[in-house]
Amino acid sequence: MLSNHFENGMDMARLAWSRLPHSEDGELDGVGLLSTSSNRNGVESLDYEVIENYAYREEQAQRGKFFVGYNVAVKWFFALLIGIGTGLAAVFINISVENFAGWKFSLTFNIIQKSYLAGFLMYILINLALVFSSVYIITHFAPAAAGSGIPEIKGYLNGIDIPGILLFRTLIGKIFGSIGSVGGGLALGKEGPLVHTGACIASLLGQGGSTKYHLSSRWLQGFKSDRDRRDLVTCGCAAGVAAAFRAPVGGVLFALEEVTSWWRSQLMWRVFFTSAVVAVVVRVAMGWCKSGNCGHFGAGGFIIWDISDGQEDYSFEELLPMAVIGIIGGLLGALFNQLTIYVTRWRRNYLHKKGNRVKIYEACLISVLTSVISFGLPLLRNCSPCPDSDPGSEIECPRAPGADGNYVNFYCGKDKEYNDLATIFFNTQDDAIRNLFSAKTIHEFSAKSLLTFLVMFYTLAVVTFGTAVPAGQFVPGIMIGSTYGRLVGIFTVNHYKKLNIDEGTYALLGAASFLGGSMRMTVSLCVIMVEITNNLKLLPLIMLVLLISKAVGDVFNEGLYDEQARLRGIPLLESRPKYVMRKMTAREACGNQKVLSLPQVVKVADAVSILRSNKHNGFPVVDHTRDGEPLVIGLMLRSHLLVLLQSKIDFQHSPLPSHSRSGSGAIRSTIFSAN
Amino acid sequence: MLSNHFENGMDMARLAWSRLPHSEDGELDGVGLLSTSSNRNGVESLDYEVIENYAYREEQAQRGKFFVGYNVAVKWFFALLIGIGTGLAAVFINISVENFAGWKFSLTFNIIQKSYLAGFLMYILINLALVFSSVYIITHFAPAAAGSGIPEIKGYLNGIDIPGILLFRTLIGKIFGSIGSVGGGLALGKEGPLVHTGACIASLLGQGGSTKYHLSSRWLQGFKSDRDRRDLVTCGCAAGVAAAFRAPVGGVLFALEEVTSWWRSQLMWRVFFTSAVVAVVVRVAMGWCKSGNCGHFGAGGFIIWDISDGQEDYSFEELLPMAVIGIIGGLLGALFNQLTIYVTRWRRNYLHKKGNRVKIYEACLISVLTSVISFGLPLLRNCSPCPDSDPGSEIECPRAPGADGNYVNFYCGKDKEYNDLATIFFNTQDDAIRNLFSAKTIHEFSAKSLLTFLVMFYTLAVVTFGTAVPAGQFVPGIMIGSTYGRLVGIFTVNHYKKLNIDEGTYALLGAASFLGGSMRMTVSLCVIMVEITNNLKLLPLIMLVLLISKAVGDVFNEGLYDEQARLRGIPLLESRPKYVMRKMTAREACGNQKVLSLPQVVKVADAVSILRSNKHNGFPVVDHTRDGEPLVIGLMLRSHLLVLLQSKIDFQHSPLPSHSRSGSGAIRSTIFSAN
Repeated sequence: MLSNHFENGMDMARLAWSRLPHSEDGELDGVGLLSTSSNRNGVESLDYEVIENYAYREEQAQRGKFFVGYNVAVKWFFALLIGIGTGLAAVFINISVENFAGWKFSLTFNIIQKSYLAGFLMYILINLALVFSSVYIITHFAPAAAGSGIPEIKGYLNGIDIPGILLFRTLIGKIFGSIGSVGGGLALGKEGPLVHTGACIASLLGQGGSTKYHLSSRWLQGFKSDRDRRDLVTCGCAAGVAAAFRAPVGGVLFALEEVTSWWRSQLMWRVFFTSAVVAVVVRVAMGWCKSGNCGHFGAGGFIIWDISDGQEDYSFEELLPMAVIGIIGGLLGALFNQLTIYVTRWRRNYLHKKGNRVKIYEACLISVLTSVISFGLPLLRNCSPCPDSDPGSEIECPRAPGADGNYVNFYCGKDKEYNDLATIFFNTQDDAIRNLFSAKTIHEFSAKSLLTFLVMFYTLAVVTFGTAVPAGQFVPGIMIGSTYGRLVGIFTVNHYKKLNIDEGTYALLGAASFLGGSMRMTVSLCVIMVEITNNLKLLPLIMLVLLISKAVGDVFNEGLYDEQARLRGIPLLESRPKYVMRKMTAREACGNQKVLSLPQVVKVADAVSILRSNKHNGFPVVDHTRDGEPLVIGLMLRSHLLVLLQSKIDFQHSPLPSHSRSGSGAIRSTIFSAN
Repeated sequence: MLSNHFENGMDMARLAWSRLPHSEDGELDGVGLLSTSSNRNGVESLDYEVIENYAYREEQAQRGKFFVGYNVAVKWFFALLIGIGTGLAAVFINISVENFAGWKFSLTFNIIQKSYLAGFLMYILINLALVFSSVYIITHFAPAAAGSGIPEIKGYLNGIDIPGILLFRTLIGKIFGSIGSVGGGLALGKEGPLVHTGACIASLLGQGGSTKYHLSSRWLQGFKSDRDRRDLVTCGCAAGVAAAFRAPVGGVLFALEEVTSWWRSQLMWRVFFTSAVVAVVVRVAMGWCKSGNCGHFGAGGFIIWDISDGQEDYSFEELLPMAVIGIIGGLLGALFNQLTIYVTRWRRNYLHKKGNRVKIYEACLISVLTSVISFGLPLLRNCSPCPDSDPGSEIECPRAPGADGNYVNFYCGKDKEYNDLATIFFNTQDDAIRNLFSAKTIHEFSAKSLLTFLVMFYTLAVVTFGTAVPAGQFVPGIMIGSTYGRLVGIFTVNHYKKLNIDEGTYALLGAASFLGGSMRMTVSLCVIMVEITNNLKLLPLIMLVLLISKAVGDVFNEGLYDEQARLRGIPLLESRPKYVMRKMTAREACGNQKVLSLPQVVKVADAVSILRSNKHNGFPVVDHTRDGEPLVIGLMLRSHLLVLLQSKIDFQHSPLPSHSRSGSGAIRSTIFSAN
């Protein structure tokens, strides 16, 4: 079937230096030669650089200078498309989530005016329906869209191809799945999935659309090499972060620090452009929504927690509680990573083996649990009287029914009372964080409520991690961090009575510290935190807590994404070899796996039998000097060999210059495009 | 003399994988074997990675795990020291410059109360004295400290070692030279020199101090490999930017985007730490200065032009004038690069060949010219009446004598008048920029004054570029850019009358556009501009003008630092090969230069004669297979060979395992530590 595509030798040659595109339904598996599906992990390494074999050079020489210009123009056009696409996807997800959640809360608040029990049931049912739709999409349509997707993207950008992560169905599953899971109130965020969404859009553009769904366009299929595709996915990843946090510079840095191991300044420049496009698209959409076209989508949605009117300055006595926040962040973050490892391993080995039905039950159970806790716990909490309102302040207490904001009146006896636990728990996460970060609301939350919330939400976040729904870790991390940050803030305000200290500042630092302790990012996280809070003055403090929390966390384990990538069998190559590797030889590293090599000229039958006999993805091509010493002259990839075999080209008489350079010492060419 | 250091074979071996440290007085030159001094450019390439030869591996094996921990601890300690050192150097330079300049202006203003001529002469004389001290230091003590130093540091971090750029005397010359040149009012800045200063501090720490000045310490000399030293210099470079602009994140990104080609995430983490240390040191020093301990050092000094009270929002009609600013920035920036190329080439070929005396005359002449223009032109300009003062505004008109701020009363007939040209020209550059950026001062500057200033200052900046004083291009670039930005702002305010537009916003965008058009940085410049203006809301606009100005500039030539590096003969390797190189072979690239190879065993006399006969820095070591085919088994560097020859070790009986692996195919070891 594949051989239809190759009518002449040049087409074959072109594929010989490109990669076999991922087919949506794995058509090659039938032949039984593709090792990837039978492999435990199904991963394959990508080429870091363009394979400069004869076919490539010949094609390049034919193209000439005009083609170079065309190629550059297409790359920039793609960067523009990625920016627009990711921006629109982010807007769509945000508007949907905000509308579902807003409708849910306003309905529940209306019902509890009459009956708390009916409201409780309605709340549970709506959440359950949303989560069920999400988990159903994931299990039956797009299994690769579960989780945050960042470990997989990180793997891809570090040279590991995992089947299925960048397909069209994954994109669709990710978008609609995260609307359901986030709208359904689970303890997870939509930021990680947006990064994955951006990467999918980029990859699909790079392939010229989805072939399975007949959405492909031939003139866009200019990107044949792994490097070009990886560059596009890098742009998509940055666009995802830029869209999720409205942090264009943070997006560039995230792609740079967290995910990409090979980076060139040209790429930075293009990634920067993509992020700028996203910023423009999102701004236009937000401007359009301001005129009331987007329903409940208003102050929430895109996470911008503006605290620019908060604490202006800080004194040196405050550095001690801030360092404490950093240490707590490192400890809790490392604990979070460790617990999620156990949970993920347990899920993989016991629970998820039993099939999709169990995954659906599990997600629904967690949804009910989350609903019960977030509705029930505030009921047990006594309401507090509203503080004397500052005439200059715009903060209402209690907030008007249906509005966003602080001071939620929930199950309170009197009118001028509010329920501090409901303010953070019975709310969308965006609003809860806005309330936790809010300045000039000292003593809004009691230590007891914060501690209750911290313990419950931390547990929920750990338990929710790894269910079969799209799930980001940023927002839950910010929730957890800002809760203990605000706790430390309460103690600081009580202890240093004279200083102009704001609890909201400590909540922000707590959020940064937990993310630092869990994800172990530094520069990008720092810039993201500054961009989403719109406050540059706290930058040195954010740097401080990030440094401390990362250092503390590093004592215990690796970053969340690294740990998760390892659990999923994605081999991330570290930038420096481990200490034990210093004296290792290649022979020892191979262990008892025997390297299979190919001669320079091989019969088809032999090649097929070699391919069938093992699962290696690469075979060294070995020649011999005149006196019999073996010489490695290149590496033949299984995928390239498959293309050659399937296209049934007469190898011996192919148009390639198979012996144009032979006899010049150790470097020889083979017909097998040794690279 | 050098041979004293090597008492046993291990010491020799260690040096065989380290680099010959730069001697302050070039002691090896006497032997006549060092090619670098006789080379036209005197550049040598550094090793990107650690040379893993037998000596290295043996030493590593001896050290064990404890040494790894110790090494990491030392690296972090050095990062701390670099941060503290660079921060203190920045504070020292800033306090000195501000005091010299403040004293100069207050003295001049006092004298012109009585006589404008006497004030004029005093102003010229003080400037002349400061510039003379600077150029004298540079020409007679530290010639490598001239210019900004960023092209050289960029070269170093891309693997090119230029003799003299990281010496102790360069550091001293840079610090005191830039105090003189900036304090003397030339059209240059102190930011580029601060980057060089940071790099010098880092390099000296890495060498364990300066051997010539007996400031070295043996226990700090742990960094033998080029990679470790390069990492330190990267930290120093970031620290320099962080200190110059008080932009810690910008510093990290500058090091990342502009200077370093090989980057690892571990390094990012350490660079981030260094920048954070700088931020803390500078903050502590500023706090100390607030209590009046630092003389004239007050609002100025560190360039923070706070425009956080400026324009809040922007409308889409404004995007057109902003795009115009981007285009102007690209054109003027590219023109600046091109003009400085001509000026630099002319200086190198005609002027500076005539010796130090001419360099001193030249700098003094430019100083007098600058003084005459900056004092004289405002005299020719008529004063404007002060605007009706807004009661809520804190801006005084005219400003109090001796204070900083807008609305300078200079050669005005009446009390309630100010001279708009003097406000920007007869002022320190920091204050001038603050005035140009200032919000809520619409119509302060007339278009005529701005245009006059733009033309004069642009010319001065071009002429000053390349004189033998430390000279940064950031502040002049910001001056030029903010002038035409404000010009566009004036037209925009007049055209779109209804919108809440602030001329200061356009000045900021102009500054960003000129720097983008000249230096062609994107992300780091963006973050630096945001950090120095303390206004995140303009980030998307800054991104927009940077994208346009860089794209326009790229049509004409390369970035300022790349062009200057090429002029100075620093070969920067681009990340992708040029189009013509696609079909080039190594033989063609060599041209008529013959490669000289060494056999595996060579006599001392032959080695010396080969070294004397040419200027190559590396020699392939060639062996032959049994049937006579040549096999390249490694590369021997001239510097390593020199160390071996100088230390007079008995090569044949060295303790190294010269044949431990022989006979295993194409990989063999030689005594010459083939790497």
